[in-house]
Amino acid sequence: MKPGAVSYVLGWFFIFFSGALLLPGAIAIGFREYSSLWVFGTSAAISSLTGALLVRYLGEKEDLGHRDGFAIVVFGWLGASLLGALPYVFSGTMGFIDAFFESVSGFTTTGSTVLSSIEPLPKSLLFWRSLTQWLGGMGIIILSLAILPVLGVGGMQLYQAEMPGPTKDRLAPRIQDTARILWGVYIFFTLLETLLLVGGGLSVYEALCHSFTTMATGGFSTRTASVAAFNSAYVDYVITFFMFVAGINFTLHYRFLTGRLNAFWRSEEFRFYLWVGLGATVICTVFTIIYGIYDDPLTAVRFGAFQVWSIMTTTGFGTADFDLWPPVCKLLLLSLMFLGGCAGSTGGGIKQIRLVVFLKFMRVQLQRLIHPRAVGTIKIDNHRVDHEVLQGVLGFLALYMTVFVVASLIVTAQGVDLITGTSAVIATLNNIGPGLAKVGPTQHFAHLPALSKVVLSFCMLAGRLELYTMAVLLSPAYWQGMRFSRRQRQES
Amino acid sequence: MKPGAVSYVLGWFFIFFSGALLLPGAIAIGFREYSSLWVFGTSAAISSLTGALLVRYLGEKEDLGHRDGFAIVVFGWLGASLLGALPYVFSGTMGFIDAFFESVSGFTTTGSTVLSSIEPLPKSLLFWRSLTQWLGGMGIIILSLAILPVLGVGGMQLYQAEMPGPTKDRLAPRIQDTARILWGVYIFFTLLETLLLVGGGLSVYEALCHSFTTMATGGFSTRTASVAAFNSAYVDYVITFFMFVAGINFTLHYRFLTGRLNAFWRSEEFRFYLWVGLGATVICTVFTIIYGIYDDPLTAVRFGAFQVWSIMTTTGFGTADFDLWPPVCKLLLLSLMFLGGCAGSTGGGIKQIRLVVFLKFMRVQLQRLIHPRAVGTIKIDNHRVDHEVLQGVLGFLALYMTVFVVASLIVTAQGVDLITGTSAVIATLNNIGPGLAKVGPTQHFAHLPALSKVVLSFCMLAGRLELYTMAVLLSPAYWQGMRFSRRQRQES
Repeated sequence: MKPGAVSYVLGWFFIFFSGALLLPGAIAIGFREYSSLWVFGTSAAISSLTGALLVRYLGEKEDLGHRDGFAIVVFGWLGASLLGALPYVFSGTMGFIDAFFESVSGFTTTGSTVLSSIEPLPKSLLFWRSLTQWLGGMGIIILSLAILPVLGVGGMQLYQAEMPGPTKDRLAPRIQDTARILWGVYIFFTLLETLLLVGGGLSVYEALCHSFTTMATGGFSTRTASVAAFNSAYVDYVITFFMFVAGINFTLHYRFLTGRLNAFWRSEEFRFYLWVGLGATVICTVFTIIYGIYDDPLTAVRFGAFQVWSIMTTTGFGTADFDLWPPVCKLLLLSLMFLGGCAGSTGGGIKQIRLVVFLKFMRVQLQRLIHPRAVGTIKIDNHRVDHEVLQGVLGFLALYMTVFVVASLIVTAQGVDLITGTSAVIATLNNIGPGLAKVGPTQHFAHLPALSKVVLSFCMLAGRLELYTMAVLLSPAYWQGMRFSRRQRQES
Repeated sequence: MKPGAVSYVLGWFFIFFSGALLLPGAIAIGFREYSSLWVFGTSAAISSLTGALLVRYLGEKEDLGHRDGFAIVVFGWLGASLLGALPYVFSGTMGFIDAFFESVSGFTTTGSTVLSSIEPLPKSLLFWRSLTQWLGGMGIIILSLAILPVLGVGGMQLYQAEMPGPTKDRLAPRIQDTARILWGVYIFFTLLETLLLVGGGLSVYEALCHSFTTMATGGFSTRTASVAAFNSAYVDYVITFFMFVAGINFTLHYRFLTGRLNAFWRSEEFRFYLWVGLGATVICTVFTIIYGIYDDPLTAVRFGAFQVWSIMTTTGFGTADFDLWPPVCKLLLLSLMFLGGCAGSTGGGIKQIRLVVFLKFMRVQLQRLIHPRAVGTIKIDNHRVDHEVLQGVLGFLALYMTVFVVASLIVTAQGVDLITGTSAVIATLNNIGPGLAKVGPTQHFAHLPALSKVVLSFCMLAGRLELYTMAVLLSPAYWQGMRFSRRQRQES
């Protein structure tokens, strides 16, 4: 790793980031919350000062190497979360650990909250809260489609050939092209959803905040009761549709919008995502009717579809208390929590494509037992999945389960009960938001022990950054590498 | 597959099996339960008749091929379970589905039961119940050390080179040598434990029954309250020790008993197994003391060690209601449920060695991210784990999770609650025995819907036969293979 090059990039990132911190100021003026102006002003000043110091005293303008990518991604997200926590602290809303948790939950598009009541907060602060998710979503799209494939994390190379992405040796140059195209798509959908929600009777402010957090599959709401507060079938269906959209690989959106109308259907991952979601919706609808939760099939479809797509895309909005649904629906939703969106979407979780690879791998193993001399190959969209990518996918799943078990043990060791503890880990590691029991849809995370909040913040970051990015940074070998490259430079 | 050759082997197996069905007759005479004599006599007659018919009308004496192994293993276990269910039915104790469940639970060494009260049953029938587990354990040792490595299931080839096992082309010849050696070890430990338990005040009958089910890591008891009924620290420690022994690869026992005293310590899997078990015991001891469950450290160690090894080896005996233990202990025990014994032991679950491979694989993936050009190899006991074996292990874990999710969904779809349903699947798939909530240690499985019992019976068989054996039989390609070989023979 080259500390100078990394500091340089991060420094400029924090300087730009201070611009984002000034945006809620406009809302503060609009809603006459003048006391909030210094909150965001001070936060922005700290952010740009931090950035300037990094650039000035540590930064060196160098080419970025393969390894620097890991440090930029992890410290970028961590730094944004730390700086993004300042408005919560400065406004006197909460203490630092809670603020950090809320900010991480924002930038990782998770949606877990420590707030027991949302409405009393200043509108500018709630706007910032929604904005953190939207910005996090922007980061995720670039991370998953332009950066991780190059770093070779978790089999994300599957998409390497698909987009105008950067080459292995130099990170910077072509990321900008990818970003421009995909962010355009992201902004387009956000504005479209805002328009449709305003059409449904929401104020522009609430429509925008909810569009931010829908497209980011974040799930923060401006209401304590989440989307249920609007009590409108139209709003439910609009948000369900955009959650579905946000869970799709953004490359496909780009292709579709530029005229390749069969882009979706040609993607195996999209077809899998669609059928799983529709299948789960049918099961939830049928069982909630059988158990007499809903009398009317249309109501059952409305709540079933909303909950399925909200959980599968890891958004986490709520319109119904599914803790009251039949056991099979609860288990189905719990399973979907792990699944997540498509790769290259803003959704978290394991990702649909990994499950597709996983299932095909299982079938190849079975075939090999029956025909020991057969050479089984796995194909996705008619392209052969090479050995390295397959190992990446399997390694991801291995690390995923390990982190899940270890984090759950740490949280329950602090006295948190079994269902609350494990579901809190599931909800944060998959970037969903609410869990079950004491962190369920109608509850919050404030009452957890401080160490648990730190562990869960770590889970959100680790899950969002596809685990291995984080694991690399925590590996001693990575830092040995840094010392080595310093010596190398002195020698040369 | 050659149906003739398979029928021939299975036919002879059922004829020998009828001998086992006659053994409880001796107990019946000893305890003057003369009405039980016709129960076992009739069952034995049906078993030998079935066998004779198979040999006479379908059997052909041919060399067994690679594929025939799958059919023999699956139909052998299924046949034994069906025939083994007859005594429960003929004695009027239960209906056929319950009897099949109980019998499968025996031959798979699971220990889940449909009996709410054990003591009222005839002693000869309870002897049969314990014997089914002991015989199942015998089967497992040969299956895991001599048959599965040849079939290439789930990475079990790891042990292929270690024992005087058969070669790929012909299954039969050298299995007998392996069997003779390892069954000697198995019988030796069973008798040793019986002696030690008799020394602790148990009757010969109860000592033998519990030794049967300890060494098989089965967990059936002759008491409703399981081992807690004896209320003796000595008995608890003796059984804890032999559960630990039963969870070790029997190859290591053989080596140790023939003078290679460092055999255990040289095995990486054994060391891992030991440290995980000891670590979990320490955590359970410390937390049960902190939470005031036990005042006295010695009592805490006694119950902690018993429960940890009972669950980790998938035995399932109970001396304490761990549902009352602190959350972290419950979660730890739940995690250990998946772990299981060492490969080549009678324990179920995923197996320690697979977890070791899994963790090493994860580390190699991490190293590859840091040093992209490095070639990561995984070594176990200083031998390189080859690519095919690694894929086998990963494929096993993939199928494992898939079966877990699908079976849980089917069981909960019948209205079984979430914790009961999922823990029932965990308990049966890992061949442990009791689950949580309504199938917890003080409960039984009788009240579940009939279809759930069938699904759970399938889970016990699938788990015991390392999943892929079963999956191969359920795969259309396997049977297409049979038609193909028939045609081939006609042509030749």
